Amino acid sequence: MSANPQAAVAEWSALLGRGAVTTAPDELAALQRNTTGYAARTIVAALRPSTVDEVEQIVGIARAHRVPLYPYSTGKNWGLGSRVPPRDGCALLDLGRLNRIRRVDAKHHYAIIEPGVTQGRLCEYLREQGLPLVLNVTGSSPASSVVGNLLERGTGFRNQRTEDVRGLEVVLGTGELVRTGYWANDDHDREVHHYRYGMGPYLDGLFTQSNFGVVTSAVVNLVPAQEAMTMLMFSFPDPRLSEAIDTVSDLFRDGTLRSILHIFNDKRILTMSSGTGVATWSGIAAVSGSARYVEFVRAEITEALERCGAQASFFTAEHLADPELDPMVRGMFRLHAGESNEVFMNGLFHTLGDGTDVDDPTDLDGTRYGMLACMPFLPVAGETVTEAVELVEKTCQHYDLVPAIALNPVDADGLESVINVYFDTTDPDQVANAHACSAALHRALYAEGFRFYRVDIENMAYLTAQDTPVWTVAGLLKDALDPDHVIAPGRYNRS
Amino acid sequence: MSANPQAAVAEWSALLGRGAVTTAPDELAALQRNTTGYAARTIVAALRPSTVDEVEQIVGIARAHRVPLYPYSTGKNWGLGSRVPPRDGCALLDLGRLNRIRRVDAKHHYAIIEPGVTQGRLCEYLREQGLPLVLNVTGSSPASSVVGNLLERGTGFRNQRTEDVRGLEVVLGTGELVRTGYWANDDHDREVHHYRYGMGPYLDGLFTQSNFGVVTSAVVNLVPAQEAMTMLMFSFPDPRLSEAIDTVSDLFRDGTLRSILHIFNDKRILTMSSGTGVATWSGIAAVSGSARYVEFVRAEITEALERCGAQASFFTAEHLADPELDPMVRGMFRLHAGESNEVFMNGLFHTLGDGTDVDDPTDLDGTRYGMLACMPFLPVAGETVTEAVELVEKTCQHYDLVPAIALNPVDADGLESVINVYFDTTDPDQVANAHACSAALHRALYAEGFRFYRVDIENMAYLTAQDTPVWTVAGLLKDALDPDHVIAPGRYNRS
Repeated sequence: MSANPQAAVAEWSALLGRGAVTTAPDELAALQRNTTGYAARTIVAALRPSTVDEVEQIVGIARAHRVPLYPYSTGKNWGLGSRVPPRDGCALLDLGRLNRIRRVDAKHHYAIIEPGVTQGRLCEYLREQGLPLVLNVTGSSPASSVVGNLLERGTGFRNQRTEDVRGLEVVLGTGELVRTGYWANDDHDREVHHYRYGMGPYLDGLFTQSNFGVVTSAVVNLVPAQEAMTMLMFSFPDPRLSEAIDTVSDLFRDGTLRSILHIFNDKRILTMSSGTGVATWSGIAAVSGSARYVEFVRAEITEALERCGAQASFFTAEHLADPELDPMVRGMFRLHAGESNEVFMNGLFHTLGDGTDVDDPTDLDGTRYGMLACMPFLPVAGETVTEAVELVEKTCQHYDLVPAIALNPVDADGLESVINVYFDTTDPDQVANAHACSAALHRALYAEGFRFYRVDIENMAYLTAQDTPVWTVAGLLKDALDPDHVIAPGRYNRS
Repeated sequence: MSANPQAAVAEWSALLGRGAVTTAPDELAALQRNTTGYAARTIVAALRPSTVDEVEQIVGIARAHRVPLYPYSTGKNWGLGSRVPPRDGCALLDLGRLNRIRRVDAKHHYAIIEPGVTQGRLCEYLREQGLPLVLNVTGSSPASSVVGNLLERGTGFRNQRTEDVRGLEVVLGTGELVRTGYWANDDHDREVHHYRYGMGPYLDGLFTQSNFGVVTSAVVNLVPAQEAMTMLMFSFPDPRLSEAIDTVSDLFRDGTLRSILHIFNDKRILTMSSGTGVATWSGIAAVSGSARYVEFVRAEITEALERCGAQASFFTAEHLADPELDPMVRGMFRLHAGESNEVFMNGLFHTLGDGTDVDDPTDLDGTRYGMLACMPFLPVAGETVTEAVELVEKTCQHYDLVPAIALNPVDADGLESVINVYFDTTDPDQVANAHACSAALHRALYAEGFRFYRVDIENMAYLTAQDTPVWTVAGLLKDALDPDHVIAPGRYNRS
């Protein structure tokens, strides 16, 4: 059976009403504007359901007429593709109107939220309700989706967001609605969100970085607020990188550091700071617990970092009162305290100019500020990290680009790195050069044995062509859970 | 096509040699002797491969002749079914000869091991090599399998074993060999076991508590040895249970407790202790880190527990020199220090008699000591836990049984409970009574909204009949990864 987009659009329009279905070419083109500079794909329509029931029916219509859907939450997958599907012929499935905070449980510290709930909205809600709970926010826009980011296995300032997931509600590619784990049966008025694995095969992991269904709600862990929270900052010059990484590994290994650490190179930090004399690398992490514990551990951290030539500073909420405080430090503190804000966005708007040409500071896609991300996962081992950084710098140099690098250890063993290159999306030469650089980075790193934890939609096909048996399994799962391949074809999968 | 067991056995014998294929009825009956008192199933044969290649071929033969396999590592799934398949007509697939420790990496603290590697053997290996690594051991026999237990989502004395998994090697029901995550491609001499999620859908979780393939190797996290390790013990009377549970939740919430806690009732602890005057509930946990940290946190824990009427004691390696030390305390300390031992086994052998009738203290199945486990996962909330314990005690009372209860908080929110009933497997009335009690416990707890994290092979069908959509997904995955249903039919699945 071949695809029948017209019939599908007619049924979707009848289901949702015409106001929730866009087919006008200029509007579809606007939806595909993206900070990554990717060319627009052929798009059938954009659909904006408001309920889970509508999503189930949309998937049914997609199956009946063989028109695939490309779901996104708020579409801010910046640096990796925004709302642009890997392949032509999809209808965009905008889940932004599924934006209910269904429940927040203060005692067991979780929220049940829909894909359209932004991190800014959830932070605001927790503050309004006066709840002693902290959202594990990312540095992205307050207008970005919590669910979208966790399904991409993104990382917040406290921990990996995929580890925040306590349950998912999914419309499978078969059209069936499923809730995972103990959530499958919550008829009884009893807590069911206290154990992520449930009984039987653990399913939540299947719906991260995949294309087997449309996630319509997630149970998301919130961090219980602690008596004390301080932000550690430290810096060190480039020749000490290897030593500093090994020290950080030790600090995680003995439990001194327990929350994700971000280490930025100067290119990255200079986009955010009002200062000019920053050192080559700057590390930032939250340290929280009882007041006595925080006092104890500050001393331990200071001593360990001194041994590798890094000077530790600690910032608390009291420092925010100082009007002279570097806005970067202020923004960073608020991120670590669970307040989503625009410190990173503002930094991005200084990569090309002074940011005064930006109308909507929450939306990178609508600007000329271009960004592409390359994201290898490295061991927390000084020598290996140094080698990777040198390879990245050398590769970028060939394209006359300076990479902005973040090295984010999540534990004693592994670190997520984010390598950004910046360019002007209105300059076709700069766009082509950045794309060539990104392709070269992925290939050079892969060839040297480095592996990736996230990837943009254009390098995805290159990576899914490697590691054959795993992608064979992903293909078998695709056929089982989405037999007509109507969900996001080619996204973290070959089919 | 119908099953052809004779043809399958002929091919398996040709493949493995006759010494590795058992068909003698008395030997098959002996393999099915089990501490749970379950009746033997009809068994086609028992197969004992030595290599992964043989496992692939065994699965191929099983598919060709439609004879299902029931894989086990060392078969010590005591209290839940030992080596007994849920259904008739399987060949037992004994993986005990796949017993290589393929690699231990001290820097990144993991081991790559096969299913036949026992926790005793791995502990011994780490000690022999003088590596500063601690295995997260369970209280089960040193002869039990690390891989088998983690695939069941068992729990060690440090953390949940499923969270120790960094990668799996699996022969799917299709016969294809797959390595998950970055392990899929380790051609390059670069560390690939530092990130459990890899890229694309997270697959490891699919192979825990399921029947989609035969796991032939796992990359297992080891705990880096710390400068200091002390074992916390505390006890409190029954009326303080609710308060103690809430205090424990607080201690996990602020990061004071970081390692799994075990809280035993008197029935459970009396089977292990040489003392007689134990309080109703006893809690035990490892506290480790730098010497300064351990000193700091001991004071914090002592103070918090005192507030709920519990007296904390701390034991270090130095206490082991005292010949008067209660053997239970000695055994517990060694478990928390990562040394597998028989303190729990010895306890079990005192449930009916004095243990002098036991020939092989590492093998419960060969004795008359009967045990059935019921394993609900509870919130770490005093009121709910008290309610569950009362329901369990009331249900058991009806069968004139006293439950041995362990409540094992894994974090601030969730606790694994293990409810054991003991009986004499040589007394048919006691066996029938225990089975009836176990069925009643599962039904009573389920009806009250409690959910389970593990289940025995006979109550499995009851639980997989609940929570419909999740088990529907498990069925779709079964068809995709094991299309001929040759792996462990009915195990944590309907098919």
